Amino acid sequence: MADRRPGQFELIARYFAPLAKSFPGAGGLKSDNAFLSADARHDLVVKTDTIVAGVHFLPDERPDRIAAKALRVCLSDLAAGGSTPYAYQLSLALPARWTERWLGEFARGLGADQRRYGIVLCGGDTVATPGPLTVTVTAFGRVPRRKGLSRAGARAGDELWVSGTIGDAALGLLAARGRFASATLEKRYRVPQPRTKLGPLLIGIAHATADVSDGLLADAGHIAEASRLGLVVEREGVPLSPAARRVVTGDPSLWTTVLGGGDDYELVMAVPPRRRQALLTAARAAKIKVSPVGIFTTGRGVQLTVAGRKVRTERMGYVHF
Amino acid sequence: MADRRPGQFELIARYFAPLAKSFPGAGGLKSDNAFLSADARHDLVVKTDTIVAGVHFLPDERPDRIAAKALRVCLSDLAAGGSTPYAYQLSLALPARWTERWLGEFARGLGADQRRYGIVLCGGDTVATPGPLTVTVTAFGRVPRRKGLSRAGARAGDELWVSGTIGDAALGLLAARGRFASATLEKRYRVPQPRTKLGPLLIGIAHATADVSDGLLADAGHIAEASRLGLVVEREGVPLSPAARRVVTGDPSLWTTVLGGGDDYELVMAVPPRRRQALLTAARAAKIKVSPVGIFTTGRGVQLTVAGRKVRTERMGYVHF
Repeated sequence: MADRRPGQFELIARYFAPLAKSFPGAGGLKSDNAFLSADARHDLVVKTDTIVAGVHFLPDERPDRIAAKALRVCLSDLAAGGSTPYAYQLSLALPARWTERWLGEFARGLGADQRRYGIVLCGGDTVATPGPLTVTVTAFGRVPRRKGLSRAGARAGDELWVSGTIGDAALGLLAARGRFASATLEKRYRVPQPRTKLGPLLIGIAHATADVSDGLLADAGHIAEASRLGLVVEREGVPLSPAARRVVTGDPSLWTTVLGGGDDYELVMAVPPRRRQALLTAARAAKIKVSPVGIFTTGRGVQLTVAGRKVRTERMGYVHF
Repeated sequence: MADRRPGQFELIARYFAPLAKSFPGAGGLKSDNAFLSADARHDLVVKTDTIVAGVHFLPDERPDRIAAKALRVCLSDLAAGGSTPYAYQLSLALPARWTERWLGEFARGLGADQRRYGIVLCGGDTVATPGPLTVTVTAFGRVPRRKGLSRAGARAGDELWVSGTIGDAALGLLAARGRFASATLEKRYRVPQPRTKLGPLLIGIAHATADVSDGLLADAGHIAEASRLGLVVEREGVPLSPAARRVVTGDPSLWTTVLGGGDDYELVMAVPPRRRQALLTAARAAKIKVSPVGIFTTGRGVQLTVAGRKVRTERMGYVHF
């Protein structure tokens, strides 16, 4: 508790109020509450995520990247809901050793992502903690009334599609921990790229969606479960980046990491075959590749195949506890 | 990480999904997002608060009381905004030693307050932390369109009114720490009573409001500051409970605690004299006493008087860092 550092109100005024300037209902963060104007044409989509130093990001991570990660894991969910993000609340539990320099870089990271994603801070809380840095973001998106997408709603015969490439982040975490060197993969772990452009375009195309935060098989499996369906995923169809392809070719046991590791923040979608062309058009507009990786079936459970041959899967996703 | 304990999904299904059952847009907490239906007649009021074990509540506090405190500090702000609460998101950072028994009692505390305040869980996050238990609540209230109350808007000549009694919680914290014995005061610290009934009735009566979370002089001072006014508070007018009166009479230095201590969760209101009768009627309907304690003036700053004599104030409120 160094005296030269600003108190809570000064800290908010200096670092966070500028980020809330363009949100009228935030009152310059001088009021406790944020007022979100009534909007009859849209439902509000809300997602809360907490990230903890040493659990969800590396303890020595750059502050601007921590800010980006905290925001983006939420924006990824909003995208899966078909919504366009527009505001967020931030709760920061700061360990005693915080510095103004750290906070300035953290706020700069928030500001950069505000411009990138068209979002604005509308409130939150700042507290002291004897524990690790803990960042909670509650993000708000808008989706046309009653059009929001969720995990439920896939139908038997829908194809499972996935955006981008899978496994980079989980392999990137291994790289960050020194198991092998790959700056490309490491960056995919450290700086998620939520598919905020693609998400809203999936309305009218996808029956069900999720983001890949716990791992492809786990998250696609959650769609199957919520939709009361079975799912077959074909490993050969899973899109890998060149960097991931190299690493997995060298050590095929890493397929488990690719299919079961988390943090991809790609979208998985249940799309009826007749909407395939519409999906490809949407993906082109969003400047992201999409790939078919499986099919929803009657029954229950997730079956992985490799070149059509059924294989047993063990670790299905990130274990939170 | 004892193996017999449930994983994240099972934990959510067992303890939290029942709390979200009546919120259609939460999808039984099986989807990541919550969908809040469009509502053209109301603005949404949003507040996020984080409480940390050992900082904002005693480390050995009962789990149902921690749940209540986490919710109620937010509900208090929503009340100050003139809004009626209806839903919340919960983020729980759990230390490794959590037990199912603890979690069951925590969820029971949430359930009891859901019934008490007419609110429902609509989403959130559950993560592991190597640090202390950290609970973040983002609460949602509804206020008639464009009628929300905030700290700004008081006018010179408005009276400062306060609900209930002041200082009980700050004195209660001293009691909890063994400085003196008072079960009544201690309970006021441990279990806040947000003025959710009174808040919405203040629309059309109060020009500006705040809840007393940082201390009477600090929070009333925030109204003055946001309204660009000065404020005179008369100590003799500050309503004390019989228990607080006894303690302060025995040790007048505790006035500093009463006026500068936090956690009262009463409402402070800037009310024009012509609305005095309407305020008293509203307070009667909400079954809570209200007392005039000061007056807003032109100029700036907060002046404390004791029987009309100006006195110097030192500690003005809870210091967060």
